[in-house]
Amino acid sequence: MKLLRVGPVGQERPVVMDDAGNLRDIGVPEIDGAFLASGGVARVREALERGDLPVVEAEGLRVGAPIARPGKIVCIGLNFSDHAAESGAAVPAEPVVFMKASNTMVGPYDEVLVPRGSVKTDWEVELAIVIGREARYLGSREEALEVVAGYAISNDVSEREFQLERGGQWDKGKSCETFNPLGPWLVTADEVGDPQDLAMRLWVNGELRQDGDTKNMIFDVAEVVRYLSQFMVLEPGDVINTGTPAGVAMGMPGQPYLRAGDVMELEIEGLGRQRQTVGQA
Amino acid sequence: MKLLRVGPVGQERPVVMDDAGNLRDIGVPEIDGAFLASGGVARVREALERGDLPVVEAEGLRVGAPIARPGKIVCIGLNFSDHAAESGAAVPAEPVVFMKASNTMVGPYDEVLVPRGSVKTDWEVELAIVIGREARYLGSREEALEVVAGYAISNDVSEREFQLERGGQWDKGKSCETFNPLGPWLVTADEVGDPQDLAMRLWVNGELRQDGDTKNMIFDVAEVVRYLSQFMVLEPGDVINTGTPAGVAMGMPGQPYLRAGDVMELEIEGLGRQRQTVGQA
Repeated sequence: MKLLRVGPVGQERPVVMDDAGNLRDIGVPEIDGAFLASGGVARVREALERGDLPVVEAEGLRVGAPIARPGKIVCIGLNFSDHAAESGAAVPAEPVVFMKASNTMVGPYDEVLVPRGSVKTDWEVELAIVIGREARYLGSREEALEVVAGYAISNDVSEREFQLERGGQWDKGKSCETFNPLGPWLVTADEVGDPQDLAMRLWVNGELRQDGDTKNMIFDVAEVVRYLSQFMVLEPGDVINTGTPAGVAMGMPGQPYLRAGDVMELEIEGLGRQRQTVGQA
Repeated sequence: MKLLRVGPVGQERPVVMDDAGNLRDIGVPEIDGAFLASGGVARVREALERGDLPVVEAEGLRVGAPIARPGKIVCIGLNFSDHAAESGAAVPAEPVVFMKASNTMVGPYDEVLVPRGSVKTDWEVELAIVIGREARYLGSREEALEVVAGYAISNDVSEREFQLERGGQWDKGKSCETFNPLGPWLVTADEVGDPQDLAMRLWVNGELRQDGDTKNMIFDVAEVVRYLSQFMVLEPGDVINTGTPAGVAMGMPGQPYLRAGDVMELEIEGLGRQRQTVGQA
């Protein structure tokens, strides 16, 4: 099932996309932690099967991020060996964890802003996990997969100078305004099937820059969720960005970082497609 | 003015402490970003001066964190030269920024849990800034101080092995459950006066371990807020932990990390006193 939120910024309305591609009102105020933790997905599925959900006229409506602002966005760094290599970093022995301010989240077609003073704004196509149940100290991979509500495309936009050359920790280059387009859909875990068999691609101005597959993750979805739950309490609605494959600007000849006017397109198999134009803050 | 929240976890009730030490109901559902951004502090002050606020019977009530869960907790690392030295780190040329999951926030007298598998859980007394207005790309120190709603004591509890020896970024050792006691009060900026003239102390089992002063911060409150606003959008209700002086377990002979049963007490001039007993997760 594909859940999404349509409407102006701050006034998004939760809908479900049916098999014919129609958007249908799901009759709840938000797709958020409370919705996910209280069996909301199952209720929507039943209502959809009963034919109870009215079609929403979506022509021209903006698509927002598919969930309300999360409590946290946790990110896994260097989770593809080819990206570790292009970053000049060793393949990590255990997951590298950092965070992104949750007010970076925007819709999949919203503008992404190059921060003031930035000359190294970069792209990162990633599989995002959306957590559906509270999780602490999970004991197994199976338990980890049970707390996953679903998946979405995430663009973990990064400013490399802020991240790597301005002292200290990566978070400084990860939390700028508009730095996390998410969506278009939250695709429920049952519909995604195996999360480790999804092609993922990113184009800039029509040129293919990243061409990876979730099968090449060093730490897979089950391990990432199990691992994180040893260090923090994961909550319904939390987002985990699981890392990017090779092909970012930082690792390319000439380092063609983003400038105003550039267009990013992102695709993950089964999760749809994003498109962002770059602007200047 | 001293704002606080009293009551069981998840059912805290916002109150103000009057000059006689009585708690008075402030008639709002929460002390959160919306309250702070909409002039809530000024309204409470006027109502208090008019004598309009009813006394709350506080005998035996738990004290929660003085604000609702923030959108983000941003932290400044190595912001006292004596702590940088005891950590074996250089004095930073610009602020070191990392983040802490906002669901780490607990009340000032709540239990702090040593995480499972932890042998290096450590304390850090810090001055917390609470943001009162949205801020992006602030142009001056003056503008920065204008977006500060007030201050509180924060214990930036840290697991040093998770933070420093488990690969990658510090966030991994900063976001464990119960790792951010805050309070007892949000003291409004006008009442605090100069935030760079506050003695700060921490005791473990009655022994003085940290004995610092906010005057020794490398980057002061105005600079920290101005600087952060260049990298992220600060929002009303956000918390900034501004760094800890020397005296943490990591830097002491024998490294006496926290164990279940230990008692931490924290004090910052004008901001009250915290006390936490350590438990085991």
